[in-house]
Amino acid sequence: MVEIHRGPLAESRHAGHAVICDATGGIVQAWGDPDAMILPRSSAKMIQALPLVASGAAEAFHLAEPQLALACASHQGAPLHVAAVEAWLKDLGLEEEDLRCGPEVSRDKALRHAMIRDGEAPCQLHNNCSGKHAGFLTLTEHLGAGPEYTAPDHPVQQAVLEMFETVTGLTSPGFGIDGCSAPNYATTMHGMARAMAWYASAQDRSDILATSAARLVAAMYAYPDLVAGEGRACTLLMRAALEPVAIKTGAEGFFIAILPGRGLGVALKIVDGATRASECAFAALLVHLGVVDPGHPDVRRFLNPPIHSRSGLLAGEIRPAAGFPV
Amino acid sequence: MVEIHRGPLAESRHAGHAVICDATGGIVQAWGDPDAMILPRSSAKMIQALPLVASGAAEAFHLAEPQLALACASHQGAPLHVAAVEAWLKDLGLEEEDLRCGPEVSRDKALRHAMIRDGEAPCQLHNNCSGKHAGFLTLTEHLGAGPEYTAPDHPVQQAVLEMFETVTGLTSPGFGIDGCSAPNYATTMHGMARAMAWYASAQDRSDILATSAARLVAAMYAYPDLVAGEGRACTLLMRAALEPVAIKTGAEGFFIAILPGRGLGVALKIVDGATRASECAFAALLVHLGVVDPGHPDVRRFLNPPIHSRSGLLAGEIRPAAGFPV
Repeated sequence: MVEIHRGPLAESRHAGHAVICDATGGIVQAWGDPDAMILPRSSAKMIQALPLVASGAAEAFHLAEPQLALACASHQGAPLHVAAVEAWLKDLGLEEEDLRCGPEVSRDKALRHAMIRDGEAPCQLHNNCSGKHAGFLTLTEHLGAGPEYTAPDHPVQQAVLEMFETVTGLTSPGFGIDGCSAPNYATTMHGMARAMAWYASAQDRSDILATSAARLVAAMYAYPDLVAGEGRACTLLMRAALEPVAIKTGAEGFFIAILPGRGLGVALKIVDGATRASECAFAALLVHLGVVDPGHPDVRRFLNPPIHSRSGLLAGEIRPAAGFPV
Repeated sequence: MVEIHRGPLAESRHAGHAVICDATGGIVQAWGDPDAMILPRSSAKMIQALPLVASGAAEAFHLAEPQLALACASHQGAPLHVAAVEAWLKDLGLEEEDLRCGPEVSRDKALRHAMIRDGEAPCQLHNNCSGKHAGFLTLTEHLGAGPEYTAPDHPVQQAVLEMFETVTGLTSPGFGIDGCSAPNYATTMHGMARAMAWYASAQDRSDILATSAARLVAAMYAYPDLVAGEGRACTLLMRAALEPVAIKTGAEGFFIAILPGRGLGVALKIVDGATRASECAFAALLVHLGVVDPGHPDVRRFLNPPIHSRSGLLAGEIRPAAGFPV
């Protein structure tokens, strides 16, 4: 799907799978193997947040739309994300130590350097998943469940599994432990694209799951800065989009898009897990679908990024392989 | 060649090429495509340093063995590397600004954090290639050539090209600009493995190229801490080896080994360029050859590294794919 060009050759190559589904769950277009079994990782966050809304917990705890966006986020631990999650926990009467995501160094360079200068250790609020975990804690409180909310048999994770199998239309064969210690359920590429199409068509249905899903999708594209952060692909591509779209990356080369205006769902996985390739291939898919303009600078930076030497010479470029997407 | 396991599946997969050559230049064993065209990147540093020794420049400038190791190094910019290159430049009557490798943030965490705390910007001495560039500058001085020693038509780079084609036994189809702005010549996997076997058998020949090559190989395994640094694969695998071996990684998933005791050369490239995969596959190749013990902790950390969540749960592992190497 993607090639790294340097000098006279494609120095490295990345293979991938991609599936576009419509509201019927059928495949509109596919590359690679639609039946490949995958872990969607953080691309499944809007599924992991669905019980939070559908259960009534979000309503009961008066969550605002930015909090729903944060529940679906892999944020970069910038001050706005950290402060928002901290305030959310305070509203719940909880503290940083109630999180179970583990500490992570902030991906926001200014904050990271300031913390090094001040001798401050990163905490769980800086973890890119801390918004999702604040959502898990809200549901935990709503259900009156125990504090170990990342355990696979905890009511929160059992609720996530039920939603996951509902929206993918498949029984999950199992789960992996994600970087934030929560279970991450496996499905096929087709299952994940079908789930995203289910979200994309949610606004046309009136049941509680559908209205909850539509609220999460709307929150994601209303707050692209909360879903990821400055300079990040999800944020920039959502901002550059010519129509409403929710975009979410996941570890190991995953990306999804939800297109409510068309009822389409998109899932993409780079086989080797490389982010540089998933960003390029996903930007190419969005161009192919007409969701973004290939000339937009924030599209070009992912679609066709130049490679420079450390003294600034142009050394090569990352680009979609010939034949992808067309 | 390598799989990333998490939960119920191999979440990501890495393909690769590997070739083992003997002193005749013939292939002893190969995986993937021996004719694949590649850029060896920093795995070619002992070739880029060959004119430095063969020209008499190393002798004329009284270079000691640690400097020959640094000329072949991708060091991590730790204080010992930075100080050694700085002293070398001073011996030449040159300064940091005479380098053309560009600045790079030190890969040594303690130094990197100290520099952030002190508000110090990284300089060219911290660039992982600064030892190679000190070697280029030494040869430049010896030849009385101009200061732009990374230009492809500069006498230093022309000398490197001549050596590269001699030791690979192939005409190079061209070059890419490396991260340090020097040309990096293309060849095949077979060409690169043949070059490494040529180095591995150099001590059995008495011509100036061979004696120069043997000196570089001996310097590499005499100073594994200078060739990379604490915690790095090249350093730890050379230290763990049961016999003399020179090991050198390169960007985009490259590794080579030179086995002087057997006259064998090894080259490995991960198709997608991932270091996590090249380290695992290369450790597996070294075990396969009996160069290292698979039970050694510094071999296991590359051969079979566990993947943990940020709160410390065991989530998966990186491991050689079934069938590789045997």
